[in-house]
Amino acid sequence: MPVVTDSISCRTRGDGDTIDLTDELRGALERSGLTDGVVTLFVGGSTGGITTIEFEPGAVSDLQDVLESIAPQGREWRHHLRWGDANGHSHVRSAIIGPSLSVPFTGGDLSLGTWQQVVLVDFDDRPRSRRVVVQFIGE
Amino acid sequence: MPVVTDSISCRTRGDGDTIDLTDELRGALERSGLTDGVVTLFVGGSTGGITTIEFEPGAVSDLQDVLESIAPQGREWRHHLRWGDANGHSHVRSAIIGPSLSVPFTGGDLSLGTWQQVVLVDFDDRPRSRRVVVQFIGE
Amino acid sequence: MPVVTDSISCRTRGDGDTIDLTDELRGALERSGLTDGVVTLFVGGSTGGITTIEFEPGAVSDLQDVLESIAPQGREWRHHLRWGDANGHSHVRSAIIGPSLSVPFTGGDLSLGTWQQVVLVDFDDRPRSRRVVVQFIGE
Repeated sequence: MPVVTDSISCRTRGDGDTIDLTDELRGALERSGLTDGVVTLFVGGSTGGITTIEFEPGAVSDLQDVLESIAPQGREWRHHLRWGDANGHSHVRSAIIGPSLSVPFTGGDLSLGTWQQVVLVDFDDRPRSRRVVVQFIGE
Repeated sequence: MPVVTDSISCRTRGDGDTIDLTDELRGALERSGLTDGVVTLFVGGSTGGITTIEFEPGAVSDLQDVLESIAPQGREWRHHLRWGDANGHSHVRSAIIGPSLSVPFTGGDLSLGTWQQVVLVDFDDRPRSRRVVVQFIGE
Repeated sequence: MPVVTDSISCRTRGDGDTIDLTDELRGALERSGLTDGVVTLFVGGSTGGITTIEFEPGAVSDLQDVLESIAPQGREWRHHLRWGDANGHSHVRSAIIGPSLSVPFTGGDLSLGTWQQVVLVDFDDRPRSRRVVVQFIGE
């Protein structure tokens, strides 16, 4: 049973920019040649997150609004005292959403619902280039 | 090292209904014939979540109360403008809790604590039939 | 492709004590003899959590402050009625952060960002001895 490690690269606008990775993930699954197993997505960096959502502007905006209400960008975060950064809220949001997601696949298909997309959320306070590791283990 | 894909089906009442999957998960592990590896649970659909909790009514209710306070059912969610849905809060809660969980097992036993159960939480605003994919990779 | 199950043991002070597991995780990866695959970390128990964060006192404290604001220690949690416990907040925080994390590795290196550490957060209201399962699958 092989391990196939691939990646998806993208540019984001930061500030909660939410990128639908589903099509590229399906392409990577096809390239892997595997039909049954699990794919692990992982974003390196402590200001990004990976989750699933119905990828339409309303739901995406609703998630950002809730995260803004629990971890507001304008708060005086202690993290700012460390480096003079202004992205304390980004670190907290990332730690809550988490940097990884595991999705089983069978018969060459991801186990996603019809209205469920895999997304990268970039919580940083500036545009970033991101590389999401996409690793398949299976047969 | 084989991949064994199984599933657990259940009916929920929605509205945060929390289903203890632990016994069925143990049964599926035994059926798999594997003793050492990792099981990935995944709920297809963007209004469910998988996590662990001490499965007793108090803790389950406490989690719902906190999610209601940060993503209230009655808010005017932008998602509602999209489809005329009324489950904007469900999508946000699902994206925060996440749709997947990975649990190692060794010697035929899941690495769970004594008071720690694996649960599906159905955040949707109506009863649903749910199928949770349960995929074992190991030996 | 083998499964290698290891663990990291530590003592915590509870109350959100956050332990950087990254160095020990790297040591366990080296001991495993594997170079490409995925490691699953899992904390047994319903009052711990595993995530990533930039491990510096400011960001760690910021995360605790946000969790205190959404699930305050002093609230009258229904879980307390069950056992006479005083750690209802711990259970809720643990269910939100989640007990597991999956990190791919390639060429013997974890896919972590430079400022991204893997941490155990102990949400319980007292010091605990914790054992985090660290399981590698790969080649």
